[in-house]
This record gives sequence, C-alpha cells and structure tokens, in this order.
Amino acid sequence: MLQQQTEIEALFDAAGRLAADALQSNQDRTHPVVHRVSPEELIRCLELELPTEGRGLESVLDLARKTLHYSVRTGHPRFMNQLFGGFDAAAILGEWICALTNTSMYTFEAAPVGTVVELALIERLNRFVGFENGEGVFAPGGSVSNLISVLAARHRAFPHVKDEGLRPSDRPVMFTSAEAHYSLQRAGMIAGLGRNGTVCVPVDEVGRMIPGELERCILEERRKGRTPFFVAATAGTTVPGAFDPIDEIANVAERHGLWMHIDGSYGGSVLLSRQHRHLMRGCERADSIAWNPHKMMGVPLSSSATLMRTKGSLVSTMGMNADYLFHEESDANWDLGDRTLQCGRRVDALKLWFSWQVLGDRGFEARVDGLFDQASRMRELVREREGFRLIREQEGANVCFRYLPRAHRSAAGEERDRHEHEATLRIRGKLAEEGSFLVNYASLDGAATFRLVASNPDTTEEDQTALLDAIEAED
Amino acid sequence: MLQQQTEIEALFDAAGRLAADALQSNQDRTHPVVHRVSPEELIRCLELELPTEGRGLESVLDLARKTLHYSVRTGHPRFMNQLFGGFDAAAILGEWICALTNTSMYTFEAAPVGTVVELALIERLNRFVGFENGEGVFAPGGSVSNLISVLAARHRAFPHVKDEGLRPSDRPVMFTSAEAHYSLQRAGMIAGLGRNGTVCVPVDEVGRMIPGELERCILEERRKGRTPFFVAATAGTTVPGAFDPIDEIANVAERHGLWMHIDGSYGGSVLLSRQHRHLMRGCERADSIAWNPHKMMGVPLSSSATLMRTKGSLVSTMGMNADYLFHEESDANWDLGDRTLQCGRRVDALKLWFSWQVLGDRGFEARVDGLFDQASRMRELVREREGFRLIREQEGANVCFRYLPRAHRSAAGEERDRHEHEATLRIRGKLAEEGSFLVNYASLDGAATFRLVASNPDTTEEDQTALLDAIEAED
Repeated sequence: MLQQQTEIEALFDAAGRLAADALQSNQDRTHPVVHRVSPEELIRCLELELPTEGRGLESVLDLARKTLHYSVRTGHPRFMNQLFGGFDAAAILGEWICALTNTSMYTFEAAPVGTVVELALIERLNRFVGFENGEGVFAPGGSVSNLISVLAARHRAFPHVKDEGLRPSDRPVMFTSAEAHYSLQRAGMIAGLGRNGTVCVPVDEVGRMIPGELERCILEERRKGRTPFFVAATAGTTVPGAFDPIDEIANVAERHGLWMHIDGSYGGSVLLSRQHRHLMRGCERADSIAWNPHKMMGVPLSSSATLMRTKGSLVSTMGMNADYLFHEESDANWDLGDRTLQCGRRVDALKLWFSWQVLGDRGFEARVDGLFDQASRMRELVREREGFRLIREQEGANVCFRYLPRAHRSAAGEERDRHEHEATLRIRGKLAEEGSFLVNYASLDGAATFRLVASNPDTTEEDQTALLDAIEAED
Repeated sequence: MLQQQTEIEALFDAAGRLAADALQSNQDRTHPVVHRVSPEELIRCLELELPTEGRGLESVLDLARKTLHYSVRTGHPRFMNQLFGGFDAAAILGEWICALTNTSMYTFEAAPVGTVVELALIERLNRFVGFENGEGVFAPGGSVSNLISVLAARHRAFPHVKDEGLRPSDRPVMFTSAEAHYSLQRAGMIAGLGRNGTVCVPVDEVGRMIPGELERCILEERRKGRTPFFVAATAGTTVPGAFDPIDEIANVAERHGLWMHIDGSYGGSVLLSRQHRHLMRGCERADSIAWNPHKMMGVPLSSSATLMRTKGSLVSTMGMNADYLFHEESDANWDLGDRTLQCGRRVDALKLWFSWQVLGDRGFEARVDGLFDQASRMRELVREREGFRLIREQEGANVCFRYLPRAHRSAAGEERDRHEHEATLRIRGKLAEEGSFLVNYASLDGAATFRLVASNPDTTEEDQTALLDAIEAED
C-alpha cells in the first residue's frame, strides 16, 4: 500500500507538470492547434486496445501524454471553431478538485460543498438576469437546460401531463426562431410533441426573430386548433450569434399567455457586461433561461445553468419523491436532486466558483467585453481586405465572412455565392488539416460561410491577420 | 504573461500535493468520513461570497483546501452510503486531462481522442454484454441513459411520434418492477406518457420482478386498450441490489413484442466477473442497456454507457441533422453528436480508458468479486450478531439490515418493525452527524432499514465490525 501511495503521489506530481506543459504549448504559435490524423491512424497512434491484464499505474502517464498530443488545443489562440475556448487555470483546478472529491449532487449530505456553492452561483446568475425570487439548477449542457424549460412550460400549460400524459385535446405547439439551436426542437420531440410541434418563426436580415411574425404564427396555430404554450428567444444564435429582441418577444408571449424561455446558452454571459447587456433587455420577464458559463465565461465543459423566474417550478415539474434518496426529513431547499432530470450529477459548480473568486464580476465583464472587441476588430480586418466580405454584419462575438478567389472577383449574385461556397469548403478544410487554425463554417444565406468565434482572450490582431493571410494563401 | 505562467505552474504543482494529501486522509481511519456542518455554517466556513473584484489566482488554493476539508470523503473505507466509492488514481488523472483538453464530443474534429476512445470502450462493453452488432454512447448518468432507451423504444413502436407527436390512438404503456429506479418512470413522464404510463410490476421476496406478473400486467393493459411497448429489467436495484430474472423477462418481452431495456446502471458491472455474470443471464437479448462504470467499476462521476443491440438505433431516435455541426461530409461513424440528447458533451471516456489500461479486464473483475465478497462477509457478521437481522437476504454488493435495541428484544411483528425503524433513523443519523461512518437507509418491507453498499475495495473486516460496534454503542 505504501509503495502504491508513493506511486500515486508521483503520478499526481507528474500531472501538475503536464498541465504546465499544456499551458505552454497553448501559447506557442509554432505549435499547431491540432496534430490532425485520421480516426484509423489515431487508433494506431494511441495503441488503443483495452488490455485483459492490467498494465499498472505507471503505464497511464503515457496515455496522458498521447491524449494531450492528439487533442485539439482548445486553449490555443488560433482555435476559433466552437463557442468555447481559452484556458482558465482556476476553473481547471476546480475540475481537478471535483474529480478528487468525486460525489453526486442529489443531496446536501452527499455533496455539502457543491450544494451551497451551486445555490450561491444560481442566486448570483439570477441577480444578473433580474429574477428576484428565482431558482435554478446546473445541467450537463444547454440542450438539457432547454429540455427542462420545455418540460416546465408543458407542466404549467398542461398540468395533467405529469400523471396522465398528453391528451388528444392538448395539441401543444411551441415556437423558436428559424435559426434557433436544434436542441429546442428536439426537446419538443422528446416531450412527445414531435418535430412538427415546433414552429420556426422567420428571422430578419441579421438572424433575429421577428416579433410580428411570432404573433402571426401564434394566431395561425390557434386557428388550426393547436395550443401555443412556449416560445424560446435566443440570446446568441449558434451561427451568426444574433440576439432575438427579447423585450418585444416578451410582449407577444405575455399577450398570448406563453411560457417564455431564453436560450442564452451562448449569449447569456453578456449580462455580465454593462456595455453589452442591453442585448438582453427584458430578460427579467422570461420564465426561464439557459446560460452556459462554459462558453463565453471560459470555464471547462460542462457548466450550464437552468434558471427559473419562479421558485418551485423545477421540483413541481421534475420531482418524483424517491424516498431512498430524499428522506422524509429531507429539505428541498438543500437537497437539489428533485430539480432536474438526472439522479447522480457531477459537482459542476466548483469550477465556476473558483473562477469567480479569481476574476470577480469585473474580470468576467472584461472577458466578455474583450471578446466583443476582438470580434469588432476582426470585422474591421475583413472589411478592409479585398476579396473578403462580411455576412450578417452585426454585434456579438461571432464573425461570419466569405472569401471570393481572385479568379472570380467579377462574379456576382448566385455565381459569386457558388465560388465563395466552394472556396470556404476547400480552404477551411485545408487549414483544419494543417492544424494551423481551427475555424468553423456553416451554411448561411445560401452558401458555406466562415464562422469565426472570438472565444479566447489571448487571440491577438496578429492571429486574426494571420488567419486572413492563410485564407488568401490558399486561393 | 510570464509571471502568470509561473503562478499557474505553481498552482498545478500544489494541486498535485493536494491530491496526495486527499488520498492519505482517505486511508487514515482517524479522519472522519465527513466534517459535518449545517448548510448555514458551511456557507460561513467557506466564506462563500462571489466577489465583484477578482482576488487573483493565488486565492484559489485556499478554496481548494476548504472544499477538500468539508467534502464527504467518498474514497474513505467507511463511506458505504452510495452506489459508488473508492479512489481510482488513474481515472482521476483521466478527469484531470479531460479538464486540460476541455473539448466537446459532438464531432471527431473537435474531440478526436475522446471519439475513438469512447467507441473502443462502447465496443468492449458491448462485447461483455454480447451485443455483436451494437452501438452506444456515454451519457451524463443512468437517468439519461434510461431516458434515451425509453425514447428509442418509443421510436420503434410509434415511429410517427418523432415528427407528429403522440397520436390519441397510441396509448403507450411501459413496465418496470415496483422497485426500479424512479428515473424510468420519470423518463416516461418526460416522453409525454405521464407517470401513469408506467405500470409497476410486483417483485418477489428479495425484490426481483416476477415474470408471470409482468405477463399478467401486459395482458391487463392490452385489455384496457393501451399499447405495451417497453419493459425495463433492473440489474442491481437501488435499495436491496436485486437482479431481475432477465432471461425470463426477455421471453415475455419477445412474446409481446416489447422493447426490452436493462437498467444495469448499478449492476451492469457484474458482466466483468466470470463468477457473478450469471446474474445477468440473457442480457444479450435486451434491446438496450444502461451501464455506469462510475458505480461498481470505481471511476469518478459521470461515466454512464447507453448500449444498443442494433446499430443505428440512436441516430434514428435522436438525430436532428444540424448542419452547422454535422457537415455534409460528416461521417456518422465518427461524429457521435447525433447519438444523444446533448449537444456539447464532456469527454467522459478518458477516465475509463485510463482505468482500463491500469486494471485490465482482470483488475475490474477482481474489484467486482472483491466487493461481492465484502458484502458476503458483512452478511455473515450481521447474521452472527444478536439484535441484528438481515432484510432481503441475497447475492450482491448491498447489505440491508436492521438493529433491534436491547430494551425491545422480545418485540415481534409490527412492534419489532417499529422499534427497528426508530433505531435505524436515530442511529444512522447519529453516525452521519459524527462523520465516523456514512451508511444510508431506506424504507424496505415497511420499516427503515440500514442499506450498506460495498463500494470501496479498501474496506476491511475491521471497518465492518467497527460499524456494527458503533451501531450497538448507540443503542
């Protein structure tokens, strides 16, 4: 046992050094964002076979090194591919401690620290939203937060569903923008409404839901005999990062008695910024919000808050009264297990707490503002350069643009779109293959479009210029 | 930046030492399992306020130390409270590396290592089950795995639901044992069936579903005009740890065309043991299985596999074709995002891979066998001692027992139950308060009953005897 103890100590010691190395290689621009290999090759490189006889503790450091080598460096300043990025040492430490204390969030007894920390964080996030008598719970991600909100809305509108299931006369219908995240429609599908139970409301030229169109859709569905019960506004859509006009959507929702949810999985963090929080004006009128600190706030996956305006919404929706977990003397104020659709649940709260202590409100605000500034600067750089053009020009941390190869500069209309489309696919693929930059693309307004996300505070103007240079160089 | 780099390196270094300390305090019996304080007191002790101005990186180690101090030592040999426990250094390292590489499992591009590792683990778990052409995905826990299985079953039986929602004529009904985990009934509730959409099938004297009763229930529901579509057998029920007779349930399910799921969240790991895998005889006939390596296999939360007998079940159930994630050239064999109800998803696969490398099949087998032996020994100790009696005597890693205080030794029947009930509540609460032992209780056969789970290989006969002594001492 003593020998094993020494061995384990050496292991944790080495892990500390691996972390330091990982951080260093993130900051070294000569390191690629990813050492890209095919799945088949990777399986070979990792010597990925699960042994019958164990290889002992000493063998595991090698796996750790290989994992770090072949993983995408999401903390690298040239990783601009997803809605998350960067490297928050305090939050990573939080995850490490979470793994060490390995417990589950169902009761205060099992997770005393996690419970009080989660409650404090929920309370603070609710204060930023403006929910004065709110509540909440952490979920494994925005998709689950969205699902919980759909279920809470279904429960309010059709309270018999919890026991009896959907009745033929219910005919529920929900609304999202045409550019909302697919998890919302899927939540409706899961809840028994089918994909057709979601109506996609048209968006304006930058991708924001049009409130008048929402109203028109609601009336139309009523005429068809369906019962509108839920609308999701999006704060930060997945591709262009658009913010739906929340206050105006709230007017429509109120008029028609709909549960209003905000999918702020990505954009909810603008509430931390005095400069940008106007993008979510009216959010305190929502019934529920999904807000993922693992995106713009930079803590590692998963950190996703499901916030409710009204205390008790979660337990009345999800509670099942399992007495082997939640004893008679159990206090729902401190035993959080009945608030969610999980039973065992990781202590995701620690990392955000650690990060908050280090950065404070102001540090998070600076982070958000910095990412917005970074995106503005990128838009400037794109605007100034021949052959490039912005698509869906707007505020936010996403920059969508296309590149038209030199040979086709005279093209216009659909022909131009076609050349841009091909160039995006070809060049983006090339960059990803080299691993020099990771930037995503999506189909937007009829053609493939680069979608860059400002997600790492360490990304500089040189990184941005280097990306545009690299795109041109692949012309 | 350089200064910050040094600071971060020092932080990770210190984390390595904290881990070594945590391990040591786990093994020191003079350390309590938990320093128990009330929620209010804990909030004070943690100085839990989220600052407006950040306190800098150096402040975070103090939080880490406090978290470790006030957390439940789930790695302590006298923590017998939940279905998980122990301290697996390799798996913890896996979690640490997961935090460092911080990425999401939706595509191979974003998570190359996580993807191939998850696929290899799923393939291996399926081999233990006997799914020859199976597939699977990791979920945030058994509740979500159960939910995905209910959805897959709903999709097979009522394929129109994915687009159109439930039709009045569908009238679906599902079956679990009366002692199944609450997440199954909740899954039905989430799916739009209501809690009444689940029929609880009676169990025998140790808590196993009675196949004849299942058949009777199915026929009864058919007579009522409902459509039976799903049955969940449980491998390792939450309280007594009973294993439903899978092979016989499969016969009934086959006869009536039901999707058969096995909730092996807890007990699935017996498949690793040549000695105990007979408890799941017939499991290869199931359509789906939930199996949580974060329970009996000892890796940290969450590690929960959702296994399907038939390739394609998951994507056909969950897939939404979100083109900004899953590009046209995307290969569903390597892009796993469409297999689940999450979008962003932690790389839970690493920890299990690391642990498998160190322990191998044989190491896991020894772990499972050791826990079973530990539980057998505990049953012997209980049997030998006056005043104690086993409840639901059976195989498995759970031991359920009650203690009858000396003053009431002559009591019988309901009176005895009542005294045992009171003693269980009082003594169990006292032990938890002192933090000397953490062992749970549940209502079983009409009275509160100690439910001890063998979950830590380091728990010795002395620990077990000490628990019984401590219970007697509180008489």
